[in-house]
Amino acid sequence: MAIKLGEIVKHLDGQLKNGDSDIIIQGIAPFDHAQPGWITFAIDKKILPRINETRADAIICGKQFENRPDIEKRLIIVDNPYAGFAKAAQLFLPPAPPSMGIHNNATVGESVSLGKNISIHPGVVIGNQSTIGDNVIIRANTVIGENVTIGNDTLIYPNVTILDNCIIGSRVIIHSGTVIGCDGFGFAPDGEIYEKVPQSGIVRIDDDVELGANNTIDRATFGQTWIKKGVKTDNQVHVAHNVIVGENSVLVAQVGIAGSSKLGNHCVVAGQTGISGHLTIGDHVTIGPKAGVAQSVENHQTVSGNIAMPHQVWLKVQNIIPKLPDMKKQLTRLEKQIAEWGNPD
Amino acid sequence: MAIKLGEIVKHLDGQLKNGDSDIIIQGIAPFDHAQPGWITFAIDKKILPRINETRADAIICGKQFENRPDIEKRLIIVDNPYAGFAKAAQLFLPPAPPSMGIHNNATVGESVSLGKNISIHPGVVIGNQSTIGDNVIIRANTVIGENVTIGNDTLIYPNVTILDNCIIGSRVIIHSGTVIGCDGFGFAPDGEIYEKVPQSGIVRIDDDVELGANNTIDRATFGQTWIKKGVKTDNQVHVAHNVIVGENSVLVAQVGIAGSSKLGNHCVVAGQTGISGHLTIGDHVTIGPKAGVAQSVENHQTVSGNIAMPHQVWLKVQNIIPKLPDMKKQLTRLEKQIAEWGNPD
Amino acid sequence: MAIKLGEIVKHLDGQLKNGDSDIIIQGIAPFDHAQPGWITFAIDKKILPRINETRADAIICGKQFENRPDIEKRLIIVDNPYAGFAKAAQLFLPPAPPSMGIHNNATVGESVSLGKNISIHPGVVIGNQSTIGDNVIIRANTVIGENVTIGNDTLIYPNVTILDNCIIGSRVIIHSGTVIGCDGFGFAPDGEIYEKVPQSGIVRIDDDVELGANNTIDRATFGQTWIKKGVKTDNQVHVAHNVIVGENSVLVAQVGIAGSSKLGNHCVVAGQTGISGHLTIGDHVTIGPKAGVAQSVENHQTVSGNIAMPHQVWLKVQNIIPKLPDMKKQLTRLEKQIAEWGNPD
Repeated sequence: MAIKLGEIVKHLDGQLKNGDSDIIIQGIAPFDHAQPGWITFAIDKKILPRINETRADAIICGKQFENRPDIEKRLIIVDNPYAGFAKAAQLFLPPAPPSMGIHNNATVGESVSLGKNISIHPGVVIGNQSTIGDNVIIRANTVIGENVTIGNDTLIYPNVTILDNCIIGSRVIIHSGTVIGCDGFGFAPDGEIYEKVPQSGIVRIDDDVELGANNTIDRATFGQTWIKKGVKTDNQVHVAHNVIVGENSVLVAQVGIAGSSKLGNHCVVAGQTGISGHLTIGDHVTIGPKAGVAQSVENHQTVSGNIAMPHQVWLKVQNIIPKLPDMKKQLTRLEKQIAEWGNPD
Repeated sequence: MAIKLGEIVKHLDGQLKNGDSDIIIQGIAPFDHAQPGWITFAIDKKILPRINETRADAIICGKQFENRPDIEKRLIIVDNPYAGFAKAAQLFLPPAPPSMGIHNNATVGESVSLGKNISIHPGVVIGNQSTIGDNVIIRANTVIGENVTIGNDTLIYPNVTILDNCIIGSRVIIHSGTVIGCDGFGFAPDGEIYEKVPQSGIVRIDDDVELGANNTIDRATFGQTWIKKGVKTDNQVHVAHNVIVGENSVLVAQVGIAGSSKLGNHCVVAGQTGISGHLTIGDHVTIGPKAGVAQSVENHQTVSGNIAMPHQVWLKVQNIIPKLPDMKKQLTRLEKQIAEWGNPD
Repeated sequence: MAIKLGEIVKHLDGQLKNGDSDIIIQGIAPFDHAQPGWITFAIDKKILPRINETRADAIICGKQFENRPDIEKRLIIVDNPYAGFAKAAQLFLPPAPPSMGIHNNATVGESVSLGKNISIHPGVVIGNQSTIGDNVIIRANTVIGENVTIGNDTLIYPNVTILDNCIIGSRVIIHSGTVIGCDGFGFAPDGEIYEKVPQSGIVRIDDDVELGANNTIDRATFGQTWIKKGVKTDNQVHVAHNVIVGENSVLVAQVGIAGSSKLGNHCVVAGQTGISGHLTIGDHVTIGPKAGVAQSVENHQTVSGNIAMPHQVWLKVQNIIPKLPDMKKQLTRLEKQIAEWGNPD
């Protein structure tokens, strides 16, 4: 790759300092690994005081470096250096390979509608009546059920399963091993046994969603399980039937959300947290790692803890829990003292 | 679909009120979505007072509506309305597609015994000496190892893995991404390294079991890991080697059961709970969500909590934990008061 | 199988007591199931007092049986009976089937380098420029991306995904459903949306590693996520980008390790534990089940608990937590008593 520094600065809507916009940049690398001819970034607090020490040809950094005549390095000053780094790194991704069409060892059902410039890798199976958008890449051994719709520019990694009637948006990325549209967990106790409640709904995944590896997103009993625009999930996330995950919310690894709960927009749920069923979690809610959320949460709250509570309370509680043995001894001591005083002798 | 109302009533062993058994029903839908020509159900407590408000042609409901002359709607009164709803919804499932036999792009090994009316989808691989029962459906890209036995009427979704020598019953449903018969986690420390303990046993899955997506069920070291009749598991459940899960027990999403533990019949284990190894959990035991079970549990107990304890205790404990900072302050205050009184001045 | 007893003793570097090295042994089985012609092992404390009761032809046991003239059974006395059992059981594994070469229904890309005696099962897809070592077995429907390197004698089970550029060592075992090289979870908030941080690094898996089923091992942002020599993971383990897991460490089922954390050598992380990002866990650290580790841990420590703390503290804390309701009552009683005394009346 070879991109003029000025083009990078323009792409980031940044401001070049000490710079020569015509130099050619070949790549982007971390601060201590970047070589001459590359750019780097200064985000980590430990890096900031060392900003003159990189060998890179330019550094993406924040506005705090705007009036720093002591820095001789070329700087690309942006409002949001982390996002600036992300956008610059996107520029240096290798170009997508040319579309390969449908590989001979793929199996495409009847009445399938196929967009332009698609790549259907070996071992892929696409069921009848499905619709695949333009520029879609479906990597090896992924299975698309019947009557599935996939939007444009969507990338599906190997060994994914998308089951019948589900709807996937545009610019969606789905990582390997993820299952979309498995049955919701619905069983009616009937004496000794359980009757299966048929799961007739679908899963709907909106545009710009990215789902990590080995996720499971259940289809709705009726209607839809709905992952809204811009949601990002990490690996091994479980989303039960009829759940709604609001726009641009983030679910970290091994999170589970039980049936019919609604998560608002711009939420962050940290790793290994569980959310019970039929709850309403507001917008802009942050939930700490390994939390157990058993009650609905209002907008803009931060909750944490095995039994989720306000995060400020949890910070105190987690300091006290290791001191419980001392508290118990203290309590016993006080009780004894009071008992002695209470006993006339 | 078109089913006479009377047939539905008969199938549910129900009692028709205000009814005309000859009207034709086309489907079943939730209370607020059902249209004329459809049936619905009244289970949710919020729905019950609004029972006259649906547009559906008939309502599955419980015995509390038996003597309610104020209700003009057609009612299908049953003992267990949730199970009645499940059974009615099963009636309206689309009919299974005709058996497709073995797709050209499937690979079937040597000496495989195949039942009648099977459907082996593209990309399926079946190893040598395996036995597939009648009416079995194996969806795309699922792998069946060598010498596996699968009973009649079993449905296996895409991208499932069933490894060598495992035994699967009849009317079993296995969802995508689930792995049956991976090695149990057995390693003997030997100085700096670990020696692998060969896992020579199998997994046995009995009739009428349903396993969710992305489960992992380990084969036994010797003998069998055994999922008994009627068990239902949600997604991302882990069952270690030599575990026994008793009849009609339910494992909710992301539960893990460590090696050699025995779970009784009719248990319910809520989501994200972990059960340690070599424990005995009795019959009819309920375990709360996100619990850590480190000790055996007697029949008919309900236990909860990160360190599992009787559920009634846990309900109190979880109220107290957020109050720990106040308790600590209170304790310090009392200690100070007592110290002052104890000091002669 | 038929192996002379003397050969087994030699393989285990053991000492034969009451023995005849020329007898033929056909297999190994647990203490109460072993038949004449087989060997067994005495490891479990419940078995040791019953050591004369087996029907097996010889018993693998520890040094405590060295000077026990009361035991008439043939004994194979070893320093480490659990490791001895593992090694003996390995002897009785069925021989690997002859290499099958490349099955007709596998798809091998361009410029792939293939070792000797390989078995590439049906449905396997191998991308361009990949290198497969000698004696490698890749079972059905596994997908190997482009430019992947796999060492000698490695065994990959069905439905595994190894993505582009990853490096897998020799004598590695990877169980079904595991995904190696999925993108790390990196997103930069940019106003309302998230910018994807490209994940350009790889996953490197060293020799003698065994990964359980349905693991997810993320590729690094830059550089490598590194699973070092001899590591063993159980099922459903999640390892995030840029994590390092040290030599011979063990990760039990459903563990999650967040980005950039470093785990030392010879650690054991028990089931369902979560480790936060950017931590340093020392060598020989043991972490209890279902722990939440939010701080770095020194060498040779044992930590436990939902908020990880020294294990000895946790043992006390977990006894006190169920007593919190009593402590709260006790505290209220004391406060009342003190208030009465404090009030002049």
